[in-house]
Amino acid sequence: MTTATPTTDFAAAILPFDRPTIARIAADLANFDGKEVTLMGWLYNKRSSGKLHFLQLRDGTGVIQCVMFKGDVSPELFEAGAAVTQESSIKVTGTVKKDDRSPIGFEIGVTDFAVLHEATDYPITPKEHGVAFLMDNRHLWLRSAKQQAIVKIRAELVSAIRNYFDGQGFTLVDAPIFTPNACEGTTNLFETDYFDSKAYLTQSGQLYMEAAAAAVGKAYCFGPTFRAEKSKTRRHLTEFWMVEPEVAFMDLAGDMDLAEDFVCAIVQHVVQTCRRELEVLERDISKLESIKKPFPRISYDEAIKLLNEHGKDVPWGEDFGADEETTISEQFDRPVMIHRYPKDIKAFYMKGDPENEKVALCVDMIAPEGYGEMIGGGQREDDADKLLAGIKEHNLPEDAFSWYTDVRQYGSFPHAGFGLGLERTVAWICGIHHVRETIPFPRLMDRLSP
Amino acid sequence: MTTATPTTDFAAAILPFDRPTIARIAADLANFDGKEVTLMGWLYNKRSSGKLHFLQLRDGTGVIQCVMFKGDVSPELFEAGAAVTQESSIKVTGTVKKDDRSPIGFEIGVTDFAVLHEATDYPITPKEHGVAFLMDNRHLWLRSAKQQAIVKIRAELVSAIRNYFDGQGFTLVDAPIFTPNACEGTTNLFETDYFDSKAYLTQSGQLYMEAAAAAVGKAYCFGPTFRAEKSKTRRHLTEFWMVEPEVAFMDLAGDMDLAEDFVCAIVQHVVQTCRRELEVLERDISKLESIKKPFPRISYDEAIKLLNEHGKDVPWGEDFGADEETTISEQFDRPVMIHRYPKDIKAFYMKGDPENEKVALCVDMIAPEGYGEMIGGGQREDDADKLLAGIKEHNLPEDAFSWYTDVRQYGSFPHAGFGLGLERTVAWICGIHHVRETIPFPRLMDRLSP
Repeated sequence: MTTATPTTDFAAAILPFDRPTIARIAADLANFDGKEVTLMGWLYNKRSSGKLHFLQLRDGTGVIQCVMFKGDVSPELFEAGAAVTQESSIKVTGTVKKDDRSPIGFEIGVTDFAVLHEATDYPITPKEHGVAFLMDNRHLWLRSAKQQAIVKIRAELVSAIRNYFDGQGFTLVDAPIFTPNACEGTTNLFETDYFDSKAYLTQSGQLYMEAAAAAVGKAYCFGPTFRAEKSKTRRHLTEFWMVEPEVAFMDLAGDMDLAEDFVCAIVQHVVQTCRRELEVLERDISKLESIKKPFPRISYDEAIKLLNEHGKDVPWGEDFGADEETTISEQFDRPVMIHRYPKDIKAFYMKGDPENEKVALCVDMIAPEGYGEMIGGGQREDDADKLLAGIKEHNLPEDAFSWYTDVRQYGSFPHAGFGLGLERTVAWICGIHHVRETIPFPRLMDRLSP
Repeated sequence: MTTATPTTDFAAAILPFDRPTIARIAADLANFDGKEVTLMGWLYNKRSSGKLHFLQLRDGTGVIQCVMFKGDVSPELFEAGAAVTQESSIKVTGTVKKDDRSPIGFEIGVTDFAVLHEATDYPITPKEHGVAFLMDNRHLWLRSAKQQAIVKIRAELVSAIRNYFDGQGFTLVDAPIFTPNACEGTTNLFETDYFDSKAYLTQSGQLYMEAAAAAVGKAYCFGPTFRAEKSKTRRHLTEFWMVEPEVAFMDLAGDMDLAEDFVCAIVQHVVQTCRRELEVLERDISKLESIKKPFPRISYDEAIKLLNEHGKDVPWGEDFGADEETTISEQFDRPVMIHRYPKDIKAFYMKGDPENEKVALCVDMIAPEGYGEMIGGGQREDDADKLLAGIKEHNLPEDAFSWYTDVRQYGSFPHAGFGLGLERTVAWICGIHHVRETIPFPRLMDRLSP
């Protein structure tokens, strides 16, 4: 490894935390137009034509064209502008000039320029790179325009999710990561030594949210969850974020109302705040704009019929795979909710439908355009005896669940909720094929770094 | 285990997700006054006097007095009101009546009442219980007034933290939980089998945020972090949440400006939005109201002098423990920032002070009133050669850190950041002695459930 040395003193490369950034200047252009600013960042790209260097400065909030005219700067500076390499850190002082040709409305007329640290042979060049190479260099890949757009959309989506639940009177109740027991068996769990015992990493905060709903009425958690599945599909991560609301005194119908209202709100928020990022990703924004209530609601039985009509012969009682979900989603222009799956293929805590005990009061929401299941949820068993029977039937350790059955023991109540997988939702909104690009540092079966 | 059966049909106990709650009615009393509402929740407490039952209904957003007058209801209902037990789930229909004697401004004149599910022998009674018993029943303990107040303050604090960084132009970049390498050695790490290799649970997202700062300029992560320390003190959890901002082109002074501005903003937000909860906790609110800029900033050298003056003989070069932190915090009415600790007792990534290479450009913020370190941070080493030397000196695996040193290889930049521990901050704001009450489902050395 060779290391480059800074060409100027880093002490001169300090800005206050609340400095003007490219995004702030763009948002307040009337105020900044004609003023001198100092920006620091990295050289994203450049081109030169005789007496002009067009330096694309990236500061993390945007990319701005800095125009260096030979007549405006010393020969040394103009030479430095010619020599500066991709991803070198740079300092530019210049005048903000409103310019309607710029995608963000202005450019900078350079009056001073310095290379802070020269980047030699930056590995990610504008040419095509293989995915394995990009994933190995994920820490650098995050600097490229497409990845930045995804990161910003993810951040805006997280903000929309939290604001939605906070605004609807939900209380955030963080679920634990370490759990002594497994919601749906230990097969797909990561295990760790926990002092003198064993702990498992959570697959879901749901059981905790049910207890929390008895405390705060409407609870949600939002944190990382873990699955040790040996799956190498484009929809699987070993570590992914899930938001899980749980509401007391609500049934399956209310749960679907909530899921629908929620998804519309967060998608429309992203459409409104991230138009530029969606354009960078070449997303068909009209497909997102059409995500409005009501969403189609079909029963599992109706879904089977639909699949049969489209040449997929799925026998009653089997779960749907990615293929079936895609076929169903293709029939609709917005997310579709499939409710009342066979009880036997669903978790022990699902409440049976009083009108047909063979099916559960559950719902899956399938994203449009083949992005698969984004929400799973339903109404929970609220009868202590039935829940206990389910725990026994699934050969789960009764003792470990005694706190959970307590929720039915002391003032039981009808309740329902769901989990939304953040990464699949980001993938759908961004129109990204593989979930590995939807999380800053993806963890896959064969990927644990950087 | 005996189970009780519902006395009414749960199908009649369903509300829409956006229903009126006690908190909503209180916030919009002019509109609700005189109107009939149906509320569902749990019996928090009751008292009777002849022809009146005063039923305290808890719905998770508040507690409201429901007054049942013998003349207004059938004898069966009045009898049910007399018999209802603590934490039974109940349904109350009645008229909203503005009442200035009520702590939330109104009460309910009951017209209809039903017990949905009777709670028999609810374990947490108004009498005193031991901490071990309450921790074993944490899922139920969360229903009590004091714990509810803490949960709400924590939720409001999380919201304030996210809003602060989002509002300051930071981008949320989630750090991974699974890491292949250890920031500060593997001694205090939880380890798990990760398919054919080993993974460690993160202690900090900082290294990832440094790479993220090169991508987005100002980055932050906010998620659970883990320490397998064999510590049974009132300040230690094995699983706790940490928010970690990291800013490009910022030095230690800017880092302290940010930490100070941030802490003032989040504390004042909680004071403004959670006054009732702080009163429930009997917190001296004036002590929080006085948390204003500027915070005192003293060097480690000055801190040593201060300790000596107060009879604590700490030799130069030693780290401060809880005792020393308390002594220092007692000298100030707001958080104090101690900067420039000896480099030898700090992590390898800390940048040395160019004016005195024996000390690091780091800062710890100590909470007032003896709540200990709430923030640790500083300026990071930005020189690749020096960083590599530090990695070797600490006997860390060079290979595992090659992506991290890349951040100094390609367009290096001065940068700084910090980590704020959520639970210690909640403890301080709430005036709670032990951090175990500051997180919904605490994980301690000897506590993994519920």
